[in-house]
Amino acid sequence: MKVIIIGASGQIGNAVAELLGPDHEVVRVGHSKGRHTVDLGSIRSIEALFKKVGKCDAVICTAGLSRFAKLTEATEDDFVFSLNHKLMGQVNLVRIAQDYLRSGGSITITTGLLAREPWPGTVPTATVNAGLEGFVRAAALDLEQGVRINAVSPILVTETAENLSLPVGGSMRARETAKAYQVSLEGDMTGQVLDVRDNGSVHP
Amino acid sequence: MKVIIIGASGQIGNAVAELLGPDHEVVRVGHSKGRHTVDLGSIRSIEALFKKVGKCDAVICTAGLSRFAKLTEATEDDFVFSLNHKLMGQVNLVRIAQDYLRSGGSITITTGLLAREPWPGTVPTATVNAGLEGFVRAAALDLEQGVRINAVSPILVTETAENLSLPVGGSMRARETAKAYQVSLEGDMTGQVLDVRDNGSVHP
Repeated sequence: MKVIIIGASGQIGNAVAELLGPDHEVVRVGHSKGRHTVDLGSIRSIEALFKKVGKCDAVICTAGLSRFAKLTEATEDDFVFSLNHKLMGQVNLVRIAQDYLRSGGSITITTGLLAREPWPGTVPTATVNAGLEGFVRAAALDLEQGVRINAVSPILVTETAENLSLPVGGSMRARETAKAYQVSLEGDMTGQVLDVRDNGSVHP
Repeated sequence: MKVIIIGASGQIGNAVAELLGPDHEVVRVGHSKGRHTVDLGSIRSIEALFKKVGKCDAVICTAGLSRFAKLTEATEDDFVFSLNHKLMGQVNLVRIAQDYLRSGGSITITTGLLAREPWPGTVPTATVNAGLEGFVRAAALDLEQGVRINAVSPILVTETAENLSLPVGGSMRARETAKAYQVSLEGDMTGQVLDVRDNGSVHP
């Protein structure tokens, strides 16, 4: 399958590209470096990407920024920034990608465990991740020509924790995290949230 | 308790005000009519309301607009409008209200069943409702001085269905829907989503 991977320069996206590379035609898309780039904050940029890469069988998105903040300190901008980037960036990607997906294709977006199991001080990100779960459940009912959509819900990535000098306890290596994206791509589920903690089992 | 009800001129808000009236000091707030009004789309309007009504024991919000649209037809604005109104309107209400709530007070916001059980053609509203569920789960961990927050998840209100000439099957009367708000106000749960279909039982 021809698989467009948005966020391929990030830890998870790169691991997904490496995992899928042997079996699929992978098109890596980064934010600012490499042959293909996209700014998820810009509809024009998303449209330009798809005009360039053309029809495909699958789109996987591992990109999208969101902020952490405690409710008592969070500004309106902490929420608006997170909604504009991680949520609306992926929503607009899906809106545009549906016109470029071949019949029976699939879309996999990225949410995160905080949607269901928040920590203190994570309100904007928890809000956005939960919204994306609702989005895939509803979007799956509307997509046409057998196109599927799922979300993968990662936990903290070990490499990211190491880079940020955070505790790595309870984190998961990017190459392990990537397996859930493969399950979404190669499986037949739709409208589901896949939990990376069990290699992409469907979240109840 | 002194209870501020935002959306008191709507079907649900009016029913909540009538249900709580005998036992509590209810302050009804409408969008444009009555002694107290607020525009949830304006932070300045929310701040002006609380400066006027002062300290309180509880805030209940049954207001917030969002749109229905099929993914294949939904515009960016269908999402942005819904996020700005129903989601950010209630998020900003909570951000501001926390400074006016007495110790041990509570906030109850409104989400909706589409967060978990979407219908075709409901993507923007399903996204927003799910985001609000994530918001209350995370916000509950950050609120201080024992302030609680929950969301009530209504189904279609019978009176609204009648007004719009929609089928009333599976809908619920506003006075029945209101009971879940009373449960949130008078109970001790926090960070929960209350399902109106079982008189405010906590949604798993």
